[in-house]
Amino acid sequence: MKQAIVARADLGMGEGKLAAQVAHASLQAYEEADGAAQREWKGDGQKKIVLRADSEADLFEINEQADVEGLPHALIRDAGHTQLDPGTATAVAVGPASDRAVDAVTGDLALY
Amino acid sequence: MKQAIVARADLGMGEGKLAAQVAHASLQAYEEADGAAQREWKGDGQKKIVLRADSEADLFEINEQADVEGLPHALIRDAGHTQLDPGTATAVAVGPASDRAVDAVTGDLALY
Repeated sequence: MKQAIVARADLGMGEGKLAAQVAHASLQAYEEADGAAQREWKGDGQKKIVLRADSEADLFEINEQADVEGLPHALIRDAGHTQLDPGTATAVAVGPASDRAVDAVTGDLALY
Repeated sequence: MKQAIVARADLGMGEGKLAAQVAHASLQAYEEADGAAQREWKGDGQKKIVLRADSEADLFEINEQADVEGLPHALIRDAGHTQLDPGTATAVAVGPASDRAVDAVTGDLALY
């Protein structure tokens, strides 16, 4: 079981900003998972990996693919109070789900 | 309502590693909160701020203070598979709770 969080590297987000966006996505996708997947993932050490995408289009594609595959997922748009324009898509989380299912959607992306 | 996640800046964690530790702490403290606090925070846009600490001792102190104040909190130790020694304390999350209560514990820390 794992969760992959894909964040945009092309926005020039600061480290703290990036971390907050990743945490938003992680929590929101977690809440989309059913109770059994939540428990299994937590029992497994709630493995999370943070991956990079280089465009908004890439995020949308990952989000769409996770949706088609029926995996828990969440796309985060920034409220735009600080570094970004309001509504900018910043991160998408996929899972918790089986490693195989998550890899099928995010497997060819590089670590952030 | 907000949640503050305090991460160590003295460990030289990479950006993705930092984001994963912050997400661990965020989710774990969220699960410690009661249902009313969870709902109120989410209705409020689940505000998260990421702050910096410069030592393990600082993290322990924040964790202890949150405990004394009765706030949801979670201290994360890294499993040590990659960049860090096993058991290294990396981040602590405080809240979701009222802004005032969170600020009483983390208010004098700088943004990460």
